[in-house]
Amino acid sequence: MNERFLKQIEFIIEVDKIKHIFRKTRLFDDSRYENDAEHSWHLCMMVMILNEYSNEKFDILKVLKMVIIHDIVEIDAGDYIVYTDKQDEKREKELAGAKRIFGLLPDDQYHEMFNLWQEFEAKETNEAKFTAAVDRLEPLMQNYQTKAVSWKKHDIKGNRVLGVNKQIDNGSNYLWEYAKSMIDECINLGLIEKE
Amino acid sequence: MNERFLKQIEFIIEVDKIKHIFRKTRLFDDSRYENDAEHSWHLCMMVMILNEYSNEKFDILKVLKMVIIHDIVEIDAGDYIVYTDKQDEKREKELAGAKRIFGLLPDDQYHEMFNLWQEFEAKETNEAKFTAAVDRLEPLMQNYQTKAVSWKKHDIKGNRVLGVNKQIDNGSNYLWEYAKSMIDECINLGLIEKE
Repeated sequence: MNERFLKQIEFIIEVDKIKHIFRKTRLFDDSRYENDAEHSWHLCMMVMILNEYSNEKFDILKVLKMVIIHDIVEIDAGDYIVYTDKQDEKREKELAGAKRIFGLLPDDQYHEMFNLWQEFEAKETNEAKFTAAVDRLEPLMQNYQTKAVSWKKHDIKGNRVLGVNKQIDNGSNYLWEYAKSMIDECINLGLIEKE
Repeated sequence: MNERFLKQIEFIIEVDKIKHIFRKTRLFDDSRYENDAEHSWHLCMMVMILNEYSNEKFDILKVLKMVIIHDIVEIDAGDYIVYTDKQDEKREKELAGAKRIFGLLPDDQYHEMFNLWQEFEAKETNEAKFTAAVDRLEPLMQNYQTKAVSWKKHDIKGNRVLGVNKQIDNGSNYLWEYAKSMIDECINLGLIEKE
């Protein structure tokens, strides 16, 4: 097998480590934490089913690729909760991770993956906005289904959840309406405090 | 939220159960079995990185969609080892699973997903052939990396591995050359018997 192929295979084996990166949110049945591979798969499914709710038209293939690779950097950087105050540290570690891990690939594929990840992080294109919307919606749905177990554990207030997840509105007004209704219900039921 | 959206959300929550369906193969570091969500994510990544080795040109978006949904039926049918003798039972249970689970979706999406799954099962189109190739290649790579742990546990002989996985050749001659080299090495090292 040629050198290009061997690099590709090394990358495919390396990214298996994402299955050991556990998130702060739990499966819908609250049985255990979810890992990044499972999360990325679930977002792919959400993109397939919910793309009609995007504010703007977008390239579905590009969004799926973005979803598939968006958390690869966490193999090196680990998972930060979306409500973290350590944003600078997170960005620095993730950038180093992107360079190392995508750097295992042949040059053309390194550039494609690295650029796709940077586009996701910048959240400016229609594709990045919709990817970010489902990336935020899944943990909201998981918290809603598990009676806010993760928000309670990390003492996250309702107003903070609303503020951080308003991001969804940039990708989909419709999904943000749905997200808000779940957050409001958690507050109204007394599962989390408003502020 | 309207009825169509509520059906879509119900489906998205239902398919979370795929994270509890464990396969017969183990992670690359042999730490535990892999589940269907992780497996499906890994195949997506393999399609992104290895599509240049397909025998025929294909629609990458269609292959990714096929990969994302290809094991949903196992939520109801469970995971059968690829070497199973119970092919009729497997097919019957999987068909019932496809009807029930994809049936949660609005009609248009039900038909899209069901047809995509049937196309995958038939393995006749270029898209289905390449999806089947990576679906077979990942467990081969896992067995190779873990010194044939799953083949040994289930007492699978080398000739059977070669026979069942020859399917890869229909999607990619190149990936089949690679697969054969791994199987041959496992036989030559005495990790599995040839027959």
